[in-house]
Amino acid sequence: MFALQDDDEQWLALRYDLTAPLARFAAQNWETLHKPFRRYAYGPVWRNEKPGPGRFREFVQCDADTVGSARPEADAEIIAMAAEGLEAAGLPAGAAVLKINNRKLLDGLFDARGVTDARQRLTALRAIDKFDRLGWAGVRELLGAGRKDESGDFTKGAGLSVEAIGAVEAFLAVDPGAGRLAAIQALAVLDLGPKGDEALGELDRISAALAGMGVAEGVARIDPTVVRGLEYYTGPVFEAELLLQTTDERGQAVRFGSIGGGGRYDDLVARFTGQPVPATGFSFGVSRLASALRAAGRDPGAAARGPVVVIAFDQSRMADYFAVAGELRASGIAAEVYLGSSGMKAQMKYADRRLAPAAVMLGEDELAAGTVTVKDLDLGRMLSAGVSDNAAWREQRPGQLNVARGELVATLRAILDARP
Amino acid sequence: MFALQDDDEQWLALRYDLTAPLARFAAQNWETLHKPFRRYAYGPVWRNEKPGPGRFREFVQCDADTVGSARPEADAEIIAMAAEGLEAAGLPAGAAVLKINNRKLLDGLFDARGVTDARQRLTALRAIDKFDRLGWAGVRELLGAGRKDESGDFTKGAGLSVEAIGAVEAFLAVDPGAGRLAAIQALAVLDLGPKGDEALGELDRISAALAGMGVAEGVARIDPTVVRGLEYYTGPVFEAELLLQTTDERGQAVRFGSIGGGGRYDDLVARFTGQPVPATGFSFGVSRLASALRAAGRDPGAAARGPVVVIAFDQSRMADYFAVAGELRASGIAAEVYLGSSGMKAQMKYADRRLAPAAVMLGEDELAAGTVTVKDLDLGRMLSAGVSDNAAWREQRPGQLNVARGELVATLRAILDARP
Repeated sequence: MFALQDDDEQWLALRYDLTAPLARFAAQNWETLHKPFRRYAYGPVWRNEKPGPGRFREFVQCDADTVGSARPEADAEIIAMAAEGLEAAGLPAGAAVLKINNRKLLDGLFDARGVTDARQRLTALRAIDKFDRLGWAGVRELLGAGRKDESGDFTKGAGLSVEAIGAVEAFLAVDPGAGRLAAIQALAVLDLGPKGDEALGELDRISAALAGMGVAEGVARIDPTVVRGLEYYTGPVFEAELLLQTTDERGQAVRFGSIGGGGRYDDLVARFTGQPVPATGFSFGVSRLASALRAAGRDPGAAARGPVVVIAFDQSRMADYFAVAGELRASGIAAEVYLGSSGMKAQMKYADRRLAPAAVMLGEDELAAGTVTVKDLDLGRMLSAGVSDNAAWREQRPGQLNVARGELVATLRAILDARP
Repeated sequence: MFALQDDDEQWLALRYDLTAPLARFAAQNWETLHKPFRRYAYGPVWRNEKPGPGRFREFVQCDADTVGSARPEADAEIIAMAAEGLEAAGLPAGAAVLKINNRKLLDGLFDARGVTDARQRLTALRAIDKFDRLGWAGVRELLGAGRKDESGDFTKGAGLSVEAIGAVEAFLAVDPGAGRLAAIQALAVLDLGPKGDEALGELDRISAALAGMGVAEGVARIDPTVVRGLEYYTGPVFEAELLLQTTDERGQAVRFGSIGGGGRYDDLVARFTGQPVPATGFSFGVSRLASALRAAGRDPGAAARGPVVVIAFDQSRMADYFAVAGELRASGIAAEVYLGSSGMKAQMKYADRRLAPAAVMLGEDELAAGTVTVKDLDLGRMLSAGVSDNAAWREQRPGQLNVARGELVATLRAILDARP
C-alpha cells in the first residue's frame, strides 16, 4: 500500500482495492442496510509496486458484490453477471471463460490425507497456482521435494506424501471442458472429506443456478486448477480468463490470462465487527479489460466519430455559426464551431482529423441566399478506404451539397445514417 | 497538496485539481493534438486541508476545457456548456446564474490610477473578493486604511487613494441584472485604460456568442464583483452561483454560493513548455453540485425505483426463480431473486424497502398451474402516500394478481407504466 501522513501526523493510505472499503462500509452500516446488500463500485486503486509494461501503480477497478447472503446462488449470480458483463463490454462469445473452483475442495483433500501443517498447505497451494505455467510435471516437483528451474535456482517443495501428490494429480486432472455437472461428478469420486463434500454441494447449487440463468457450459466451467492468491477467500473462487491468443510488442504469441476474479469472503466484514458476514463478489481491472477488448479486435476508438464541424470564415459571423451548431446539437447531432485561428484549408484538415462526418460552411453567399454548403467528409474517408464501387458511390452521393438552411439537419442526418 | 515518497524515495503527489494535469498533458502532446483541443475529465482530487462540514480532503471534480483557442468565443462556449450542464443535471431554470468577469478590467482600472505595487493590488483584489460577504462598506475599509471586524481583529487595508476607491465603487456598482450588453456599456464609461478596453472587447464577443448560442440573459451575466482566487487566470473568469436560499443543519437560512467556476489561463501550459498556449475551462465540484441539487429539491434518490423482487420460497426451486428474473431482465425490467435466508414476511419487507414496484411469487400451486402471483407494491406505496382517490384506485387495481406465466412481463410493465 501507499501510505502517507497528514499535517497532524495521522497515517492515511491510498486504497488498495474496493473490497476492503466495502467490508468497512458494510460493517459500519450493518444495522440499516437492507440485506442482502448488492452494490457495484468503480474507481482508482493504488499498489506500491514497481510499475512495468501493463502494470501501473494506479489503475481503475470495477467491482460488484453481494453482502449478507450465504447462498451459493449469490455466487452464481456474481459469476453470471461477470460473464454477461464481459460480453456486454464487447468480448465475442467464446473469447473468455469464467473458471469456478472452491477453496474447501483442496482443504478437504489435505485434511483427508493428514496434510495439516499450515506452511505445508500454503506451499502446496502456491505450487498448484503454477499449474498454468509449469504443467503437472513442474507442480509435482514443487509438491514433493522441490524443483530446479532452467536457471539452476532451486525451490524447496511442500514435501507431501506420494499418496497426497497422487490425490492432487487426480484432482487437477478433472476436465473442465466436460461440463459443470460432469466435473462435479468426477470430483465426487475422489476422497475430499467432509469439507470437500460441503464444497461440492455448493458447486452443485451454483451449477443449477447458472443453468437457471441460462449461462452456457462453455462460458462458466468448474476448473480445479484455479487457486486465487488472496487469503481472504473462504469458499467458491472465480477467475475470468481470456482464451484469445494475443501477441506482445515484439509480435510474440502470449496468453492474455486472467482479466478479473473474485470469490466468497465470509470473514472479511468480521475483521471490523467480530461477527462473520457472508459476502461474495467479483472484480475487473478496467484497463486490463480494455487491453483484452483491443486484443479481441474491439477497439472502442475504432468506432469513434467526431462532431460536425462548422467552419469559421468570418469573425463578425461567429454568432451565426454558433446558431447553426446549437440547432444541430438540439437535433441530437454532435457539432462544434471551429475555434482556432487558421484558414479554410487547415479547418478542413482539422475536421477530417476530428473524424467529423461533415463540415458545414456558411460564407457570405450562403448567408445572403439562406442556404448552407455541406461537405461530406465521411464520403472522402470511404472512398479512400475503397468501400464498395467508387464510381457508383460518387454518382449517388456528391461530395459537396448546397442546400436550403431548413434542410441542413435532414442533409446531415442522411450522411450520418449512410455510414456503413 | 498531499505528498508521499515511494520505496525509491521519489516524491509523488495526489492531484490537486484536473487543470494542471491537463496543462501537462497538452504540453507533452502538443505536436500531435488536433487543435483547438477540447476535453472533459472527471475524477477525485485531494486537498491537504482541515476537513469540515461539506469540506472533504478527497472530492470529485468534473472539468471541461478548450486548449489552443485564444478566441473569446471559446470562453463563451465553456460558459454556455456550464449553464446547459447545470440545467441538464436537474437545476431548475433560474436556480443558478453564471457570473462573468474579466481579470483585465481591474488590472486596467488599477493601471489607470497608478496602483502599480503588486502587493497592494493583491490586497485590493482580496478585499473585492469579500464583496458578497461584507458589502461595499466593508470592502471600502479594506481598500483604504483597514477594517476592524466584530471580534475586534484588525485587517490592514490596501491603502488605495480616495480616487481609486471611488473608481472601484463605480466598477462594483455596475448592475449585472440589466443585461450583458448594458453591463458592458456601463463599464465602458469608466476609465479602465487600454487593458480594460481589451477586456471589454472580449466580453463583447463573449456576449455576442452567448446570444448566438441562445443563452438567456438571466442565466449568464456580466458581474464585476467576481474575482476567483486562483492566480493562474489571465482574462475572463466565470463563477456558477446557486441563487436558491437553502438552510443549514440548524434550519438557518444560508446562501449556497459558488458551485463551480473557471476562466481563461493562457500561461499555465507555458509553465511546462515555455511557449504560451491559450486555454479556458470550467470546473464543478460534483458533491457540491449534488448538494445543490438536493437543496433545489432534486434528490436523485427520490426518483429511485428498485428491481422487481422474485420471492424465494423453496431452495429446490431456485433455478425457476432465476429463470423468471432472467426473463424479466431480458425484457428490460430490473429484477432480482431474494438471496437472503428469511421467510416470506421479511422478504416482502425487503422488497418494499428496496422500492420494488412488485414482488413475484412462484409457490408450488403456481408452478403446478403454470401461473404466477404478482403483488403490486407500488400500489401499496401510493395508497399510503394518499395518491388520488383510494377507493377508485383499489377498484381499478387489485393489490395482488394471479396471471398466466406468459402474461408476467405485460402485467409488470403495466404496473411500471402506471406509476404517477
